Amino acid sequence: MTVQSLDEIRDLAAQLRVDSIRCSTAAGSGHPTSSMSAADLMAVLQARHLRYEWQRPDDPANDHLIFSKGHASPLLYSMFKAAGVVSDDELMTGYRRFGSRLEGHPTPILPWVDVATGSLGQGLPDGVGVALAGKYLDELTYRVWVLCGDSETAEGSMWEALDKAAYYRLSNLTAIVDVNRLGQRGPTELGWDLDAYARRVEAFGCHAMIIDGHDLEEIDKAYLGVADTDRPTVILARTRKGRGFDEVEDREGWHGRPLPEEMAQRAIIELGGPRDLVVTGPSPDGGSPRVWPDGDVHLPRFEVGAKVATRLAFGQALAAVGARGHVIALDGEVGNSTHLEEFAKWYPERYFEMFISEQQLIAAAVGLSVRGYIPFAATFAAFFTRAYDFIRMSAISMANIRLCGSHAGTEIGADGPSQMALEDFAMMRAVYGSTVLYPSDATSAASLVAQMADRDGVVYMRTTRGAYPVLYGPDETFPIGGSKLLRSSPDDQVTLIGAGVTLHNCLAAADELGRDGIHARVVDLYSIKPIDTQALLEAAAATHGRLVVAEDHYPAGGIGGAVLEACNDAGHPVRIRHLAVSGLPGSGTPEELMAAAGISASHIAQAARETLSWLRQGGL
Amino acid sequence: MTVQSLDEIRDLAAQLRVDSIRCSTAAGSGHPTSSMSAADLMAVLQARHLRYEWQRPDDPANDHLIFSKGHASPLLYSMFKAAGVVSDDELMTGYRRFGSRLEGHPTPILPWVDVATGSLGQGLPDGVGVALAGKYLDELTYRVWVLCGDSETAEGSMWEALDKAAYYRLSNLTAIVDVNRLGQRGPTELGWDLDAYARRVEAFGCHAMIIDGHDLEEIDKAYLGVADTDRPTVILARTRKGRGFDEVEDREGWHGRPLPEEMAQRAIIELGGPRDLVVTGPSPDGGSPRVWPDGDVHLPRFEVGAKVATRLAFGQALAAVGARGHVIALDGEVGNSTHLEEFAKWYPERYFEMFISEQQLIAAAVGLSVRGYIPFAATFAAFFTRAYDFIRMSAISMANIRLCGSHAGTEIGADGPSQMALEDFAMMRAVYGSTVLYPSDATSAASLVAQMADRDGVVYMRTTRGAYPVLYGPDETFPIGGSKLLRSSPDDQVTLIGAGVTLHNCLAAADELGRDGIHARVVDLYSIKPIDTQALLEAAAATHGRLVVAEDHYPAGGIGGAVLEACNDAGHPVRIRHLAVSGLPGSGTPEELMAAAGISASHIAQAARETLSWLRQGGL
Repeated sequence: MTVQSLDEIRDLAAQLRVDSIRCSTAAGSGHPTSSMSAADLMAVLQARHLRYEWQRPDDPANDHLIFSKGHASPLLYSMFKAAGVVSDDELMTGYRRFGSRLEGHPTPILPWVDVATGSLGQGLPDGVGVALAGKYLDELTYRVWVLCGDSETAEGSMWEALDKAAYYRLSNLTAIVDVNRLGQRGPTELGWDLDAYARRVEAFGCHAMIIDGHDLEEIDKAYLGVADTDRPTVILARTRKGRGFDEVEDREGWHGRPLPEEMAQRAIIELGGPRDLVVTGPSPDGGSPRVWPDGDVHLPRFEVGAKVATRLAFGQALAAVGARGHVIALDGEVGNSTHLEEFAKWYPERYFEMFISEQQLIAAAVGLSVRGYIPFAATFAAFFTRAYDFIRMSAISMANIRLCGSHAGTEIGADGPSQMALEDFAMMRAVYGSTVLYPSDATSAASLVAQMADRDGVVYMRTTRGAYPVLYGPDETFPIGGSKLLRSSPDDQVTLIGAGVTLHNCLAAADELGRDGIHARVVDLYSIKPIDTQALLEAAAATHGRLVVAEDHYPAGGIGGAVLEACNDAGHPVRIRHLAVSGLPGSGTPEELMAAAGISASHIAQAARETLSWLRQGGL
Repeated sequence: MTVQSLDEIRDLAAQLRVDSIRCSTAAGSGHPTSSMSAADLMAVLQARHLRYEWQRPDDPANDHLIFSKGHASPLLYSMFKAAGVVSDDELMTGYRRFGSRLEGHPTPILPWVDVATGSLGQGLPDGVGVALAGKYLDELTYRVWVLCGDSETAEGSMWEALDKAAYYRLSNLTAIVDVNRLGQRGPTELGWDLDAYARRVEAFGCHAMIIDGHDLEEIDKAYLGVADTDRPTVILARTRKGRGFDEVEDREGWHGRPLPEEMAQRAIIELGGPRDLVVTGPSPDGGSPRVWPDGDVHLPRFEVGAKVATRLAFGQALAAVGARGHVIALDGEVGNSTHLEEFAKWYPERYFEMFISEQQLIAAAVGLSVRGYIPFAATFAAFFTRAYDFIRMSAISMANIRLCGSHAGTEIGADGPSQMALEDFAMMRAVYGSTVLYPSDATSAASLVAQMADRDGVVYMRTTRGAYPVLYGPDETFPIGGSKLLRSSPDDQVTLIGAGVTLHNCLAAADELGRDGIHARVVDLYSIKPIDTQALLEAAAATHGRLVVAEDHYPAGGIGGAVLEACNDAGHPVRIRHLAVSGLPGSGTPEELMAAAGISASHIAQAARETLSWLRQGGL
């Protein structure tokens, strides 16, 4: 059906409101009033401006629509009904129900949803990532439309997003801010001071338009106008929460509350009753994304025994993996430290500087993943904590992003604890579907970087600041989920388990123990999640259940926890002597700090000696 | 010595530069050029404007100086030398050395440092917290001066800070931005476009001043001018990185690099040689903080069996604890959901709305902690992930902050995974010196809230959305680090361990098992860190090593991990049957979602049955 005239669009907007009310009342939860404020904005968009093939959500030329205010899901799903891709029955019986794809907040289980939202301040940063792909990689004319709430402009991440959008001149990005002036618990900071919003937006380099968000003509003109600027546009729409039903319109106390049945009936009557309009909006321009041809990947080869930092190996390996045209690098303004800049030397077109804004760094990766690119984002490992909410949400978005964190643990030395990732394994292991890697040498680091490119989900690698000897020849393989047995003999009395820098300490400890006639097995646990449970249990069995685990991480939830959990889950709990960073570190040399933390070679050797008195425990 | 005239101050600035060069060259690492750009700004401040009793850092009337650009620690420590509180010898032999208090980035080991910095974009938000204390709680005239870098303005948290500073009209806060135009790896986004910075600052409601950061007279006038406004001031100072030594001034490639010895010698000569000026700056206004008298705390009492959500108990208990005058509540715009607003009803003067900006929420708590207040910050548990970097840093700041996260786990139901904290235990347990609590009922929640007020470090409590029966009478005690045995008999065959909502599932499972004649012990593990290892081992010993742990959290690093780690560390590894959230949840009822996650009562009962075939393992 053609919904084209403003009168028809007015009908569509009423339908979106009615359906938002109906589905949330039926579900007994949801945010109808936050949907009603934006219904006019979305009706005009859907009918006249969103260039989208609803039957072909994977069409690369499609516009993108992201609800950064994910709680307005009733409105989004009502749009899907109006597009003819979700039935009224599904909307009414599925919304927020168990097993339904119409979840409380949108997720990409739905083919028309790019990213999961619901943690405010993320949809716009994600949209920046999609728009980057459109302008610089796909080179297609699709637009990215992001519906934002006014409350979420209090999140710093929104300003990281606008800043980067302006920096990259993302004229293909339009944020539509539904300024309904009411947050969850009362008025927002800025209320209806649209000028205050506009000053901020303009100061951040974007084009601001102020409109009446319930005047269809104004809305239409604003959308037409976004094409005229070479900057990103932020449409600031003055709206009323609960618009269209007098009993709730612009009233406090109605956030996140469905209308009770009887009230819903009155609202539907006031809005002219239910409708079943089906809209065919404009079609995309068509076209195909630019082809970024794949070349052959030739990983760097390192000489055994040469001292090479794994962060350098990461950079060089990523530059090699960059032969694959879809690999993209994102820097958090530390590319000379993480060595991500090695990639930039070869592929400057696919290297994006995100400056010191880790939330936008991750969101850009998520947005690029939406368009099928293979993003690698790198910063100091400690600073991924800045973006943990984004990392958590990217798992719900089913995004495929690769993260590399350098300068981890006490090993970094003089810079002190603010720069030491000591919680990263706990944080990253907890993420749904994540992969956590910590190579000890350049060869394994390079091999794992190549595998990361093909790995789904959140894939994290920690690299080490200092240069340590290459342990493996270039033809060794390091499957994710595996481990390496570096030292072993039939006479092994104890197993030393390390990863990254502590693996080198384990090797030194094994040497020290060997001088005392104690045979120690050494396991390189480069894959922390998934973990090589079989190898751990075999080592336990071979060495009388005596395991020492050393890690440059705080005690809780790190490698020690991973070992205990894995063996327990396999039904074979083990005992470990666990060496982790026990106090709050300060500055010093890596050696001093690792010694103070209790994870040096001599601590490992001493711990191993202590295990010799253990009674046999654990193992297969 | 009097350093008062601009000529004398010029000498002082040269001294600060020389000492910054000397100490970093001696240490072999550090950021001299980032110190040199701000030396003039700090020399004028120290000599004429920073009202500070250097011998009495705890004087409540003192101004506060925070280096948000913590990497300029050579400059800060050189100021300490100029103040006469750090000797030249300490500076030269201590900086960045092991065991020294002059760490690579400032930490409050030093009595003149309020908060740890080094993760950029945090010092200014922390300063907002201190300024809030000054204006609204202490009611003293001290000023908060924050030296910021230009690169860190890319962090969204800086804009959260300016937004809140303006909202609360913190005229006692002055940010000094050292716009030296060079970041770590090259030019900043905005370079020397001071007008662009000013537009942003003004748009965010603060007073912007643009000055030449090397013109002592302009600097002095700017500092004098901050008193004339009722808004926070941001001084945008155009500076040159490495100022004062021609070989490095305004050149790329010198970030974070000490000058080689020979170069340092040339620089010192160019700067007029070493000096030993000692400065006495202005004195504070004096005065004492407003007294907030303590009343008696009468915790709410709950009837056993009544259904009360622990989030409501939290709010009511905090309102009771609010009788203590130093207790402050900070809301992330969800006070009606977390029930923090119960506190506001009684103590509106000590309730601060931080809107949806979780980073600033935590930073405000840190800042209040600096001034000895007892802050409680609350939001949905999932959204603390947004501020993990701030939480991590607050541990290094040795701040005492209390966090309450509501709406955790699959139990929240229809809202879906974006709102479900499923990583919070892993995240919070990993933090240095943290406490992690998860009460199951209103009585224990209230008791723990009262104890949180007196607990140091990062203290986190998770509360549950739904209402569940009160389990304990009002006179029970719940020491942090303890647990409760809710069901036990001499015939117990298996132990069920839960916390929060899963404790109720464990009780239901015990009932179900009881109907089959299986005696199950039930442990309420309300304290996850520290954890009651003794009780766990006793339970294991009493029930043939058969332990079932159920948690509404992803599998890695949560309660199961805590149990395994604790028993292992005690030398008595245990085997657990671990039930945690195994897939990516969607929407549904709490019951449906807990069943789908495998943590329902019937899953627990089934897991318990399976343990009956275990061979005896573990325990004391």
